[in-house]
Amino acid sequence: MSYIYLDNASTTKVDKEVLNAMLPYFSDRYGNVSSLHKLGEKPKEAVEKSRKIVADFFGCQPNEIIFTGSASESSNFALKGVAEAYKNQGKHLLVCPIDHSSMVQAAQHLANLGFEITWLKVDKQGIIDKKFLEGNIRPDTILVTVGHSSNEIGTVQPISELVKIVKEKNPKTLFHTDATQSVQYYDLDVKRLGIDLLTITGHKFYVPKGIGALYIKHGIHLDKLIDGGQQEFGKRSGTENVPYIVGMAKAIELVKKNQKQITERVSRLRDKLIKGVLEKIDGTEVTGHPTSKLPHIANFLFKNVEGESILMMLDKKGIAVSTGSACASHSLKPSHVLLGIGYPPEEAHGSIRFSLGKDNTEKEIDYVVDVLPDIIKKLQKISPLK
Amino acid sequence: MSYIYLDNASTTKVDKEVLNAMLPYFSDRYGNVSSLHKLGEKPKEAVEKSRKIVADFFGCQPNEIIFTGSASESSNFALKGVAEAYKNQGKHLLVCPIDHSSMVQAAQHLANLGFEITWLKVDKQGIIDKKFLEGNIRPDTILVTVGHSSNEIGTVQPISELVKIVKEKNPKTLFHTDATQSVQYYDLDVKRLGIDLLTITGHKFYVPKGIGALYIKHGIHLDKLIDGGQQEFGKRSGTENVPYIVGMAKAIELVKKNQKQITERVSRLRDKLIKGVLEKIDGTEVTGHPTSKLPHIANFLFKNVEGESILMMLDKKGIAVSTGSACASHSLKPSHVLLGIGYPPEEAHGSIRFSLGKDNTEKEIDYVVDVLPDIIKKLQKISPLK
Repeated sequence: MSYIYLDNASTTKVDKEVLNAMLPYFSDRYGNVSSLHKLGEKPKEAVEKSRKIVADFFGCQPNEIIFTGSASESSNFALKGVAEAYKNQGKHLLVCPIDHSSMVQAAQHLANLGFEITWLKVDKQGIIDKKFLEGNIRPDTILVTVGHSSNEIGTVQPISELVKIVKEKNPKTLFHTDATQSVQYYDLDVKRLGIDLLTITGHKFYVPKGIGALYIKHGIHLDKLIDGGQQEFGKRSGTENVPYIVGMAKAIELVKKNQKQITERVSRLRDKLIKGVLEKIDGTEVTGHPTSKLPHIANFLFKNVEGESILMMLDKKGIAVSTGSACASHSLKPSHVLLGIGYPPEEAHGSIRFSLGKDNTEKEIDYVVDVLPDIIKKLQKISPLK
Repeated sequence: MSYIYLDNASTTKVDKEVLNAMLPYFSDRYGNVSSLHKLGEKPKEAVEKSRKIVADFFGCQPNEIIFTGSASESSNFALKGVAEAYKNQGKHLLVCPIDHSSMVQAAQHLANLGFEITWLKVDKQGIIDKKFLEGNIRPDTILVTVGHSSNEIGTVQPISELVKIVKEKNPKTLFHTDATQSVQYYDLDVKRLGIDLLTITGHKFYVPKGIGALYIKHGIHLDKLIDGGQQEFGKRSGTENVPYIVGMAKAIELVKKNQKQITERVSRLRDKLIKGVLEKIDGTEVTGHPTSKLPHIANFLFKNVEGESILMMLDKKGIAVSTGSACASHSLKPSHVLLGIGYPPEEAHGSIRFSLGKDNTEKEIDYVVDVLPDIIKKLQKISPLK
C-alpha cells in the first residue's frame, strides 16, 4: 500500500485536469494580461473566463472577485483593508478566536495599531455564542469576521444566522467569512449567506499553493495592501498569475460537477473512521460539532498522549496526518482552537486531525483503524502524562 | 516566421528547464512545507535549497530572502513595512518618480497616511540627481527607494554610489532598490551594492508570473503586510508556493550559467535594432542613458505618431511590443516615466519599447527593421499631430 494521505485540510495534490488546464499558460500562452498585443489576448480571455466561473460559483458578479496569492493575503486584505478604510466610522472589530491564524494575527496587528478587538465567544463544539455576538455589536463596529468552518475541528458556523444578527443590530457593520475549507463541500452563495467579504484559497481543493481569492461585495472600499499597476480592478496590483487562476477555475468546475458525490463519499469514509476509532480506543473524544461539521475532518483527542508522537508513529506506518493546523505545526504549542473551545493545554496536546480527500479509499481507512489502536496503547504506556 | 516576441520586459515565456523542475511539486511532491510528516519533507528541502540558491546569487544569507507573490508585493512590503515600523524614527521617504508604479503608488498611499514623500530628481536620461539626493536626506529620512534599472527606458542607476551618499548623510536611512529587470543581466551582490532591501520577480527571467522575492538585510524589521501562520521566518504568512519557488531557483541557476553569453547576445541584437531604426527612420530618438542601460531594452520616440497605433500595426505584422510599462498600458495615459524625465505629453505618446529576450534572433531583428519604417511613415501621413 502506498502512502495514505489524510492531511487534505493542510493541502491537496493538484488534480490532473487542473494541471492540464494550467500547462498551456506556462508555454504558448505566456503573455501578460495587460499587454495590448496578440500574445496578451488569450491570457486575458482566460482570466476573464476564470473569474466568471468563480463568480458564478459564489453567485456574484465577476468584478466582485479578485485573485490574490493566498487565503492569508485575502483575509489580511479584508481585515486590514476594512479597518483602514472605515476607521472614521469606527475602530471596533469582532473576531472569532478559533479562526485560522491569519485572522487572529491580523486582528492582533490591528489591535497594535489602535483598533479595538472583541473576541467572540464559542461553545465547546466551536459554535459562536449568538447572544454574546448580539450584545457586542456597537455603532462603531465596522467588521465581524467568523470563519465559515474550522480547519481544525471541522465545525461549520450558521453564517447566515450570524449575519442576520449583525445586520439587524448595525446594518453598516461588514461581515467577512473565511470559507477556505468549505469550497469542496458547501453551497457558498454569497447572497444566501448575506456576507460582504469571503476568503478562499485554491490549494484546499486540488489547485496549487499560491493562489487565493477574495469576494468583495459591490460598494465596499478596501484600503490596499498592494498598490501599483492597478490589476484586479485596481484593488490588488501585481501581474496576474494566469496558470493558477485558470487552475482555480477548472477546479471550481470540478467541484460543481462532483460536489454531491464527493461529499457523500468523504462523509461516509469520515464516519467509518470515527466509528472505528471510537470503538477501538477507549476514552477517545471527537472534537467539534457532532452534525454541523465539514465532511472531511475528524479531529480526535486521545488520552495521555502527545499528538506529535502519534503523528510520527503514523508517519512510520505510511499515514500522513496533522496535529491541528499545519501552518502552526512547527511551533509545537497547543492548538489555539482547542484552547479556545475550552480544552486545557494537557488535553489539547493529544489531538490529531485526520482530513480526507476525494482520492481516499475504504481500504485506507480500514488500515488506519487497524494500526492506530496499537500506536495509542504503546504511547500511553510510555507516557509521562498518565 | 512565427510571432516575434519583443516584450520580455513585460513578461517572459517559462523556460522548459524551469517548468520541468517545477512539475514534480504539483503531483508527487505536493505536501505542505509546514507538515511534520514524510510528505512535507521533500517540499521543505526543496524550498530550503531554493532559498539558498537565490541567497547565494545575491550574496546574502538564506534567512535574508523571503518569497512573495510578486514584485509589487515585495516593494509594497518594503515601503509600507519600513514606514510603519520606523515611523517613530521619522516619517520622511525619498522616492524615485520614474520607478515602477508599485513604488510610486505605494509612496502615494503612504503620503495619504501622513508620511512625507520627497520625489527625487532625474535628468533627461533618467539618472538620479545626486546633489538633490544628498541635499534632501534628513535626520527623519527613514527610507530611500531607487530602482536598479528602469523597466521602460532601460537606464541603470549607479546604486552603490547613491547608497554611499545616503549612508554618509544618515547611516540610519534604509535603502531599497527594485531590481526586477536586472536579474538576468547584472551582478546584484547586495553587499557590493550596499542596499538594505531588494525586490525581484520571477516572470522577468523565465519563471511563471506569481512569485517574487524580497531581500531583507539582517536586523531590519518590517511591519507585516500578511500576518498568519508565520511562514517565511514569520515575515510573510501563507502556504509556500513550492513549485514556483523551485522554478525561481532553477531560473537563477540558469542565469548564473548563461548570464555573460545572454548579455552579449541580447546587447548585440539590441544595438543592431537601434542602429537599424535610427538609420531608417528620421527624427527618431532613443530614450534613456546611452551607456548605463539594460541590455534588453530599446525605447524609441517616433515623431508625430501615437505609440498605440504603432503597437497595433506591429502586432498585425506578428511583432509584440509595448508602449511603456505593460502594467499601465490599458490606461493610454502617457508614460509617467517619459513625463518624469522631461518629455512633453505629445512627445511621450509616441514611444514604443522593444524588450528582447534570450530566444530572439538576428532574423527577427532584421524583420522588425524591415517593416517598421513603412509603419511609421503610414502613421505619420495620417497623423493629426503633425
